[in-house]
Amino acid sequence: MNEHIRVGIVGISGYSGLATIKLLLNHPNVRLTYVSANTTQGKLAEIWPQLNGKTKLYCEQFNADKAASLCDVVFLAVPHCVSMEITPQLLAKKIAVIDLSGDYRLHSAAAYKKWYGKKHLDPRRLSKAVYGMPEIFRAKIAKATLIANPGCYPTAAILGLAPLVGLQTKAIGSIIIDAKSGVSGAGKKAVPSMMFAEVNESLKAYKIFCHQHTPEINQYLSIIAGKEIDATFTAHLLPITTGIYETIYVELAGDGFSASKIHNLYKKFYKTEPFVRVLKLGEAPEIKNVVGTNFCDIGLAFSKEKHQLIITVAIDNLIKGAAGQAIQNMNILFGVPETTGLA
Amino acid sequence: MNEHIRVGIVGISGYSGLATIKLLLNHPNVRLTYVSANTTQGKLAEIWPQLNGKTKLYCEQFNADKAASLCDVVFLAVPHCVSMEITPQLLAKKIAVIDLSGDYRLHSAAAYKKWYGKKHLDPRRLSKAVYGMPEIFRAKIAKATLIANPGCYPTAAILGLAPLVGLQTKAIGSIIIDAKSGVSGAGKKAVPSMMFAEVNESLKAYKIFCHQHTPEINQYLSIIAGKEIDATFTAHLLPITTGIYETIYVELAGDGFSASKIHNLYKKFYKTEPFVRVLKLGEAPEIKNVVGTNFCDIGLAFSKEKHQLIITVAIDNLIKGAAGQAIQNMNILFGVPETTGLA
Amino acid sequence: MNEHIRVGIVGISGYSGLATIKLLLNHPNVRLTYVSANTTQGKLAEIWPQLNGKTKLYCEQFNADKAASLCDVVFLAVPHCVSMEITPQLLAKKIAVIDLSGDYRLHSAAAYKKWYGKKHLDPRRLSKAVYGMPEIFRAKIAKATLIANPGCYPTAAILGLAPLVGLQTKAIGSIIIDAKSGVSGAGKKAVPSMMFAEVNESLKAYKIFCHQHTPEINQYLSIIAGKEIDATFTAHLLPITTGIYETIYVELAGDGFSASKIHNLYKKFYKTEPFVRVLKLGEAPEIKNVVGTNFCDIGLAFSKEKHQLIITVAIDNLIKGAAGQAIQNMNILFGVPETTGLA
Amino acid sequence: MNEHIRVGIVGISGYSGLATIKLLLNHPNVRLTYVSANTTQGKLAEIWPQLNGKTKLYCEQFNADKAASLCDVVFLAVPHCVSMEITPQLLAKKIAVIDLSGDYRLHSAAAYKKWYGKKHLDPRRLSKAVYGMPEIFRAKIAKATLIANPGCYPTAAILGLAPLVGLQTKAIGSIIIDAKSGVSGAGKKAVPSMMFAEVNESLKAYKIFCHQHTPEINQYLSIIAGKEIDATFTAHLLPITTGIYETIYVELAGDGFSASKIHNLYKKFYKTEPFVRVLKLGEAPEIKNVVGTNFCDIGLAFSKEKHQLIITVAIDNLIKGAAGQAIQNMNILFGVPETTGLA
Repeated sequence: MNEHIRVGIVGISGYSGLATIKLLLNHPNVRLTYVSANTTQGKLAEIWPQLNGKTKLYCEQFNADKAASLCDVVFLAVPHCVSMEITPQLLAKKIAVIDLSGDYRLHSAAAYKKWYGKKHLDPRRLSKAVYGMPEIFRAKIAKATLIANPGCYPTAAILGLAPLVGLQTKAIGSIIIDAKSGVSGAGKKAVPSMMFAEVNESLKAYKIFCHQHTPEINQYLSIIAGKEIDATFTAHLLPITTGIYETIYVELAGDGFSASKIHNLYKKFYKTEPFVRVLKLGEAPEIKNVVGTNFCDIGLAFSKEKHQLIITVAIDNLIKGAAGQAIQNMNILFGVPETTGLA
Repeated sequence: MNEHIRVGIVGISGYSGLATIKLLLNHPNVRLTYVSANTTQGKLAEIWPQLNGKTKLYCEQFNADKAASLCDVVFLAVPHCVSMEITPQLLAKKIAVIDLSGDYRLHSAAAYKKWYGKKHLDPRRLSKAVYGMPEIFRAKIAKATLIANPGCYPTAAILGLAPLVGLQTKAIGSIIIDAKSGVSGAGKKAVPSMMFAEVNESLKAYKIFCHQHTPEINQYLSIIAGKEIDATFTAHLLPITTGIYETIYVELAGDGFSASKIHNLYKKFYKTEPFVRVLKLGEAPEIKNVVGTNFCDIGLAFSKEKHQLIITVAIDNLIKGAAGQAIQNMNILFGVPETTGLA
Repeated sequence: MNEHIRVGIVGISGYSGLATIKLLLNHPNVRLTYVSANTTQGKLAEIWPQLNGKTKLYCEQFNADKAASLCDVVFLAVPHCVSMEITPQLLAKKIAVIDLSGDYRLHSAAAYKKWYGKKHLDPRRLSKAVYGMPEIFRAKIAKATLIANPGCYPTAAILGLAPLVGLQTKAIGSIIIDAKSGVSGAGKKAVPSMMFAEVNESLKAYKIFCHQHTPEINQYLSIIAGKEIDATFTAHLLPITTGIYETIYVELAGDGFSASKIHNLYKKFYKTEPFVRVLKLGEAPEIKNVVGTNFCDIGLAFSKEKHQLIITVAIDNLIKGAAGQAIQNMNILFGVPETTGLA
Repeated sequence: MNEHIRVGIVGISGYSGLATIKLLLNHPNVRLTYVSANTTQGKLAEIWPQLNGKTKLYCEQFNADKAASLCDVVFLAVPHCVSMEITPQLLAKKIAVIDLSGDYRLHSAAAYKKWYGKKHLDPRRLSKAVYGMPEIFRAKIAKATLIANPGCYPTAAILGLAPLVGLQTKAIGSIIIDAKSGVSGAGKKAVPSMMFAEVNESLKAYKIFCHQHTPEINQYLSIIAGKEIDATFTAHLLPITTGIYETIYVELAGDGFSASKIHNLYKKFYKTEPFVRVLKLGEAPEIKNVVGTNFCDIGLAFSKEKHQLIITVAIDNLIKGAAGQAIQNMNILFGVPETTGLA
């Protein structure tokens, strides 16, 4: 393409917003034209001193008209329950929206109310948003106007399970997802439980049986499987800044499985995917190998005796779990080679 | 008692050895009389500079005669496959042994060979060693001469599951233990994978389906249940020095369970235990609340809909998971109040 | 002594308060009788879950009458500018006060105003408070009614410099103190700059030329030297929870010095001190060797060529730098052996 | 330019080597054609799993002929004392060398012997190597055949001091550099003192008065000043993976200085430099703002009263302190825009 994609970001005071800015500033086909935030205005390079010398942009209060006049696409890195107010304004002005919040991921307004605790303000659009997971929904993404960018935990969970759930649907029994995440997933708000001395040298499970990513995971696994999937999902807070690790336990009925058969299934499923790396049999991923990248690393171990598959998945929660995947979606949407700006 | 217990430690160059020394130096009924190590000799306060000013002991090469002449009981904080060489020598001299290694925990020499990779040198004693978990085997510990101190992972797993497995045996379905541990559990040897830059800001699963603590967990759960238990156990390395966290998923058959019923079961089971804290319903433990203590914190969450119990357990791997529990065992063995030196 | 010292703590919601509670609960001559806090009331074991099972105390709003009726001595672990309101009330009721805040450390009300930003409310008492550094002011502490417990940075700085400043006064030239501290020194308030993701994997200098511990250091160094000392002090925030490290550069005039002469000076000065460890020549302390203890470790390196002494000092900021030193002071004040409860 | 620069790296098993590979793989004008290591051979993507999917290169034992046939320039990321064996072989074949080790930084073979402990094997070339600090020696770098890439600590120290030392030479009094570094600077070798549990939650000074970067700093400061400079340099090990922070204390004679005058001096000196950011007066850098970048951030604070300047400097030790600066040098050498591949 001859011209740059003009891109705006709404919500730049959190870690996802920062990650999005950093990637977009290095994207050869993008011109970052507009940044806004609700609580913080001023020079972007003063809000985030690490951007000093890289941008002269000024962050202002959100204004839909201004955003529309300056952008071809807007990334929303706002908290949930905010995106559903902004999205309709931008779509009305024919601006494509890539929403990093959870507002358009669930198809049911009732489920949204239950898990996010608020009535949805734009319920009719819930069924029209496209879930921005390129490995599964690439064709739809290419034609979307509203992309619901997947949550960080669901990205790892769904990529880890999709080949199995999609191709061995009948054999799937109980699924347990034990997830561990660095703190940047929680946003930048100053809350006592996220202070250094509270998180450091510790670990805890949180929101057991009630994490809002649970219905997102199950909704899309069910779509992929073509049958109801009800996985258990538990989140833990790790004393690291960035990274997600999920250890997934799947019961597999039948005697036809072997480690290498399952491994081949995954290798084949992700054969042409630029950002999914299926490790050798017997290897497990490590968070450090994906931090700073858009890769999703998947390890597989199978016990024939126990009819049990253990899938281990690692991603960078801010990149493949947020900003990187969002840019991958943008690339698809604008017909740019999918890996551009993400190498 | 009028006199001090004379205590020796064999294997003081690792973190369990250090933790044992530190606790014993503060124990009012103990005189630490003998320390030895295979690879490092010299002043104890130079081997571990943090002990400077606290002890004048000299660490020497192990000598069974000398140990026997100076000690009433010897703690073995040696690597596995070493303890089984030393233990028979000490027992022959009528010295009580508390073994922190894995050498006397499994009852079957064949299982030992399979999971530890070496032929057991003292197989006949395997069935006579007493498993040093006071909450379960207190009466036997009081009369033991050889105490097999539990592994760190098994301590958390068994304490987390004992009430359920012991009292609701029939309802127990599949059990999955997702365990996370700080690095001190791996010992102090300089290996590339344990270097700061390799562990920091990362996480990985390891020894999937083949961790040597798996048979230990299942052997004792089976004893407690009175039926075969075959839990799945997965270990992860956390970027922290000390602490273990286990998230345990149990399938519970039948409709008779409720969260409060299970909670009461646990409260009652551990009612008089000084070192097990059953948290309020809905709370999950945090590693930071047990580090530096002999406590085991247990959280419970139950989904009636899913017939699923999630037990979360936190311990300090070097204290309740090693040195602290060993001293608790010593207290029982010598008739000292059980919490002495552990408050 | 036959009876317990009845102790109260005002300000238990911060890390110094917690450290004080933990030490006092293990002190054989103490009964903790009263705890209060301004912002948080309730069961102490719920405010600090790690105390679960160790205390049944209830934390209430501060009341001077109640505190006086229940206590022989009260520790103030409140923020500065609060202590000067509470202290007069307690002293009026003949209760001894050990103040962990900075309110009574400076002798001049004008200096207090300059460095703490507020007018002092109890200026006449400034010259009467005893600075609670046992190694220097032990005799005065024994007779004090108000003890100004030293700041964490000043404790390391003054202990590191006292022998030299006191005994080689004339030779002392410029002094530079480069200090590094873990986050617990900053208290538990939720501020953005102390969030895990902001502190982790980073370091920064702060309050250059304007840290409030500067005048405290210089005031007491000047007293010890008997001449004006004007050391430069710079603080840095370390990505660790606990510990202070100070690297002190001293210009030494004259040709009479040698490394061993200086080393002997320090060894002699601290010969009978239970909590100061002068390391061997050529060794430098490490934070990990003092964490969890009341020790102050001091390393010395001298370059005759450069007429320069480098003193390295490590302490646990919450123990020797706060709670531990406070209890050491209490022991002296009540005639209990000085190391009691601190081993 | 039309063609790619063909680049080789010798020594890819350490963290500098990895950082160099990662930057070069993303450099638009570079083709990475050759990688070798002494101890590890095999697929590069297996040696460093994070490179999986990014390169198919095979790492082999070093062979000068092969390297010469495949490369226009070779980066040496080998330990010191190895580079001086390899460099002459490559130069003999007319291949440009960028040496990341310390072998060609000191001008005197005697100094090399003293600080690196080994006789130099290629002493005649010591005076011919160009010190690869673009901000100071850009013109020479453009014509060099052997570039001695600066050490990590010296990079921060010299950039922090160059404007002052170069332009206010007469006023300069004593200089003290208190430096703190993450562990990656020490290389990847498994040594006990660099194990996670030894480094984590701690800090220590090391090699006081005898760190090999001291003469490097003083040699180049002296060259810049045109007079002998003898700064004191102390290194500390931080519990982080990446980053260096230096706090530099300079005595400034005379009354002509003011904070803003000094600040302007620095702003002007670095005005056109793409990778040096002089912060606003009163601000101090933070390691997190430079990690992952080639920036050097400099903060300034001046006390007129004390005639003292405190300079704070932060860099990423693996990028501006090693690989990034090396690539900046390569860009200059090959006439590529200097920031290429470093944004």
